[in-house]
Amino acid sequence: MDKILRINTGGENGPVATVSDLGEYAGMGGRGMTSMVVSKEVPADCHPLGPENKLVIAPGLMAGSAASTSGRISIGCKSPLTGGIKEANAGGQAGQVMARLGYAAVIIEGAPKNDDTYKIFINKDGVSVLKDNSLKMKPNYDLVDAMKSEFGDKITVISVGPAGEMKMAASSIAITDMEVRPTRHAGRGGVGAVMGAKGIKAIILDDTGMGMRKAKEPDKFKAANKLFTQGLRGHAVTGEGLPAYGTNVLTNVINEAGAFPTFNFRQGSFDDAARISGETFAELEKQRGGNPTHGCHRGCVIQCSGIFNDKDGNYVTKQPEYETVWAHGADCGISDPDVIARMDFMDDNYGLDTIEMGATIGVAMDAGLISFGDAEGAVRLIEEVGKGTPLGRILGAGAAVTAKAFGIEKAPVVKGQAMPAYDPRAVKGIGVTYATSTMGADHTAGYAVATNIMKVGGDVDPLKPEGQIELSRNLQIATAALDSTGYCLFIAFAILDQPETFNAMVDSINAMYGLNMTADDVNALGRKILSMERDFNKRAGFTSAHDRLPRFFTRESLAPHNVIFDVSDEELDTVFNW
Amino acid sequence: MDKILRINTGGENGPVATVSDLGEYAGMGGRGMTSMVVSKEVPADCHPLGPENKLVIAPGLMAGSAASTSGRISIGCKSPLTGGIKEANAGGQAGQVMARLGYAAVIIEGAPKNDDTYKIFINKDGVSVLKDNSLKMKPNYDLVDAMKSEFGDKITVISVGPAGEMKMAASSIAITDMEVRPTRHAGRGGVGAVMGAKGIKAIILDDTGMGMRKAKEPDKFKAANKLFTQGLRGHAVTGEGLPAYGTNVLTNVINEAGAFPTFNFRQGSFDDAARISGETFAELEKQRGGNPTHGCHRGCVIQCSGIFNDKDGNYVTKQPEYETVWAHGADCGISDPDVIARMDFMDDNYGLDTIEMGATIGVAMDAGLISFGDAEGAVRLIEEVGKGTPLGRILGAGAAVTAKAFGIEKAPVVKGQAMPAYDPRAVKGIGVTYATSTMGADHTAGYAVATNIMKVGGDVDPLKPEGQIELSRNLQIATAALDSTGYCLFIAFAILDQPETFNAMVDSINAMYGLNMTADDVNALGRKILSMERDFNKRAGFTSAHDRLPRFFTRESLAPHNVIFDVSDEELDTVFNW
Repeated sequence: MDKILRINTGGENGPVATVSDLGEYAGMGGRGMTSMVVSKEVPADCHPLGPENKLVIAPGLMAGSAASTSGRISIGCKSPLTGGIKEANAGGQAGQVMARLGYAAVIIEGAPKNDDTYKIFINKDGVSVLKDNSLKMKPNYDLVDAMKSEFGDKITVISVGPAGEMKMAASSIAITDMEVRPTRHAGRGGVGAVMGAKGIKAIILDDTGMGMRKAKEPDKFKAANKLFTQGLRGHAVTGEGLPAYGTNVLTNVINEAGAFPTFNFRQGSFDDAARISGETFAELEKQRGGNPTHGCHRGCVIQCSGIFNDKDGNYVTKQPEYETVWAHGADCGISDPDVIARMDFMDDNYGLDTIEMGATIGVAMDAGLISFGDAEGAVRLIEEVGKGTPLGRILGAGAAVTAKAFGIEKAPVVKGQAMPAYDPRAVKGIGVTYATSTMGADHTAGYAVATNIMKVGGDVDPLKPEGQIELSRNLQIATAALDSTGYCLFIAFAILDQPETFNAMVDSINAMYGLNMTADDVNALGRKILSMERDFNKRAGFTSAHDRLPRFFTRESLAPHNVIFDVSDEELDTVFNW
Repeated sequence: MDKILRINTGGENGPVATVSDLGEYAGMGGRGMTSMVVSKEVPADCHPLGPENKLVIAPGLMAGSAASTSGRISIGCKSPLTGGIKEANAGGQAGQVMARLGYAAVIIEGAPKNDDTYKIFINKDGVSVLKDNSLKMKPNYDLVDAMKSEFGDKITVISVGPAGEMKMAASSIAITDMEVRPTRHAGRGGVGAVMGAKGIKAIILDDTGMGMRKAKEPDKFKAANKLFTQGLRGHAVTGEGLPAYGTNVLTNVINEAGAFPTFNFRQGSFDDAARISGETFAELEKQRGGNPTHGCHRGCVIQCSGIFNDKDGNYVTKQPEYETVWAHGADCGISDPDVIARMDFMDDNYGLDTIEMGATIGVAMDAGLISFGDAEGAVRLIEEVGKGTPLGRILGAGAAVTAKAFGIEKAPVVKGQAMPAYDPRAVKGIGVTYATSTMGADHTAGYAVATNIMKVGGDVDPLKPEGQIELSRNLQIATAALDSTGYCLFIAFAILDQPETFNAMVDSINAMYGLNMTADDVNALGRKILSMERDFNKRAGFTSAHDRLPRFFTRESLAPHNVIFDVSDEELDTVFNW
C-alpha cells in the first residue's frame, strides 16, 4: 500500500492512469487520506460536478492485513449534496482488496471530453482503462453480473448505478460484499454523482496473486490482534447484539428511548416499531433461509451484515441496516419488513443513499405527495428516482431540495444532508454531532447515541443539554482517527468500554507500521483531520451559522418526552475548541 | 406616511391587524425600511417559509407626493431563493397609493394556524381582514378581476399567483398598474412564496378620499421637482431611449457589446437579436394599437412601460422588459416576439420572476430537457410551473435547484439567484455587482452597465478588470439610497450625468421632509443600508466565499470577445471597504 493511482479523465482519448509514490500523503489512510487530498488538491469553491473536483478512494491503514474487522474504505470529494468536504465510508471487500493490490488511494480527477462511459480494471499486472458504453444506466446488480461474466467471480466491484450517472445528490457508490453483490455503499453526500460526472461507471479489482499485507512486527501484531479480537467478541454489543440482529438491534432500543423519528420527525416513537425491529428481521431471516449473522467482508468478527430472503427463500437484499429500516420505515410510517427490504434493494440497485432517500420520502409525504404509511407509494417514488423522471429528479436531489421544491419548512437536514435515525431532541449528543460535523447531519461522525442511550463509554443523559458538547467533541475526534484505520466504527463499543481492547487496537497499528503511537497521538490525528476538514469547509463558505439544526427542532417539542433541542448556539460553537 | 400596519397571521381566528407609530423606523422608506425591519426583527437563521420570517412592504420616501417618477415600492424578507436578505422592488400604483393611505410599511408576520386564504382591504377608513378561500390558486389576472368586481376599479392590488401560493422560490408579488393589471412585479428572490406562506393572497388598496402627500417646504419642493423633471426629460436615456422603446432598447446595445448571454451563457451575442429588439417590439406595438410609450404609474415622466397587443389588436401583456426579452429570448435561443410576450403574460399571471424563469429554462435546455430555440417547449415548461407538476416544482424553485436536480454544473447564479441579461465576462462591472451584492446576482443592485456600456457617469472599459470594483461599490451605495426614495432607478442615468439633476433630486427630498441632506448624507444612507444587509447575511451564514461568480465564468471564455471574468477574489473582497 505504497502507491497512489491517479485517473485523469480529461485525456484526449479517455482517462489516463498514472501511478506515483505516496509523497506527502505517506502515513495517511481512509478518511485521513481522502480529506487530506481533497483539502490540498480540490479548490474549495469549485462546483462538485466540475472538472476541479476529485474523487478519492482510500482503504484504511489496516486494510488488507490480518487485523480483524479492518475492511472499511473511505471515499472523499467535495460533496454535491452539502457543498462541503465529504468522506463516505463503506464495508464490503474493496478496502481489503485495494490495499492488497498496493494502492493507498485511487484519485479520479479532471473532466471527460465526451459522454463515453469507462470501467477501470485493476489487478496484480496493473491498470486497464476500458471504454464500455454498454454499461450506461445499468443498475448495480446487473452491472456486477456483467463484470463477473467478463472478469470472473473473484472480483470486487466499486460502481455507480443510474443515480450516480444522472449525477443525483443522493447517489451512492456501491461496493461488493463477499458474495460479490453490490450491497455495501459509501452512501452519504452524493459521492456517486462525482464518480458519474467523471464518466467512470465501475472500478473492478482482482487481488489474485497478491498476498495479505504483512506487519512490520509480526509477533507483536499477532498478539495485539488476538487481544483485540477477544475484546470484540467479549463485548455485549459487538459480541452479541450486532451478530444476532445486525444494526437493527437498535429499532426497539431507540423507539423505547422516544428518539425514533416517526412521520418526518413529528414524534419520537412508532406504534409499529416491533414489526420492523431487528428481532423481527432476524427471525424472518432464519425462517426463510437467510442469515442474520454474516460479515460484509472477509476478516470481520462482528458479523452484523445479514442476508434477507423473501418468503419463498429467494435472496432479496442484505439485512437492511437500522438507519435504512428507520428511513424507509418509521420516518415514512411504513411497517412492512418485506417492503422495507425491497426498498433497500432498490436503493442499492439504483445506487442511492438509503438514509437520504427515506428521509426524502418522509418530506414528500409531509408535503402531501403521498400519505404517511403508503408503502407501495413509497416504492413508486423510488422507481421514479431510478428512472430519472422529473419527480425522481427532485427526490434524487435529497431531502433539502425536495422540501424547497415543495415549499415546506420541515426538512430535517444540516448542511443540506438528511438526519439519520435518531431525533436530536431526544438524543442531544447526536444533535450536537449533526449540527457541527463537517459532513452535514451524520450519526457516524460522532456517535453520541452510544453514550446517551447505550451507556457505552460513560453515561450522559440524552434529554439534557449538559455534557453533550464534550461528548460529541471527543467522539468526533476519535472517529476521525478511527475512520483512517480501516477498522469498522463498530469496534468503538468495545474500545470505549474496555481499555485493554483500545490498547490492543493501538498496538495493532503500531505493530503493523513499526510505530509507537499513544492514545494522545491517535487523538492528535483525529484533530488534524477535523481541522483540515473544517478549513476546507470554511474556504467553501461555511460558518458557525451552518453548525445549527433547523429552527423547528428548537421550536416544536417531540413526544413522548416533549423535549426540544436546547443546546445553545454558544455551546455549539465550542465543539472545536480544543 | 406616519404609521406601520402589522398583520399577524398567527391569530386564533385568522390574521390580526394592528397599526402603530413609526418608532425607530421613522425616516426610513423603501429598501431602507424593508432592510431595517428584516435586519432587526427577523432571526437571520430562520427558515424563509417559517413563522419567524416577515414580509415587509414599504413605499419609498417620496411616494405619494407630486415628485416625478417616485412610485417604486420595496418588498423585503429573508429570501426563499437565496437564504439571505431580500429587497425586491416594483413600479405600479401601490407605492403611491399606500403612501397616500399613510402607511410607511405593511409588515406581514407570524404563521397561519390553518390553510385559509385571506385578502386584506385597506382604504381611508382602515383595514379589513377578509377570509376568502374562493381565491385559492387564482392566477393574478383573474384575481384582480375578482377584486375589481368586489371593490370597484379604483383599486390597486398587491397579490400572489399560484406560484406564490405553492411557495415556489421563483415566485413574485404582483402590483397592478394604471390600468389595474397585474403587470408590475417585485420579482426577485421568491418574495411571493413568503406572502403565500403567510396565507395572504392579496392586499387591496383604495386611496379614494386621500390627498397627495404634501411637502414641508412646498415652494422649494415645486422648484426642485421642476428642475428634476426637466433633467429627466433632457437626458438621452430617460428622455428618448426609454420612452421610445422601453428597457428593451438594450437588446441591440448589449448584443453589439458582445455581452448578451445566449444559450445559457454559452456565447455573448445572438444572431436573431434584431428580431427581439426594442425597436422591433415598439414597431409591433404601434402597428397593433399597443403603445410603446406609457408609464407604469401615475406621475412618471419616463414612460418606459408600454403595452403589447397581439396581431388582432388584443392586449397580451405590458411591453416586456429587456431582462424578460433576454431571459425568454436569447438565453433560450428564442426569437419570436409573440411567444416572448406570451411567456411574459404567463409569468405575470402565475406570479413568477421572468428573469429567474427564463434563466431556469435556459438551464433546463442545457440539461437536455428541451432544445434551445424550442419556443413551444418553453411555453409548456412555464405551464408545468403554473400547474405545480413535479417538473414545474423543479423549475419553479429556480435555476440553481434546476441545475442541481438535473446534475449540471452550468447554473448562472450567485447566492442561488439567477443572473440577469448581462454577461459578467463582457461587462465586468456588473460581474462585480452580481458577485458581491447582498441580493444575489442582481443587475439593479449596482448597474455598472450604465458606465461600462452606455458611458453614463464616466467610462470604464467593460472588458478589463481595472476600475470595476470602485464603479460597483459607488453604484451599490448610491442604489441602496435611491431604492429608499421611491424614485425609479432609471433616474440614475440623468442624475449620474447631470449634476444639476442630482442636486434637484436631493433638494426635492429635503423640501419634502424639511431636511438639509447633502450628497454625503445620501451616500451615508446607502452605506448604512448595505451594512445592515451585509450584517444580516453574515448572521445567515454568508461569507466572502459567497461573493463569487460560479467558477465556469473564470474558466470558459465568452465569444465574441473571448473574455473570462478576471476580477480577482482579493479585489472582490474590497468592494465593501469604505
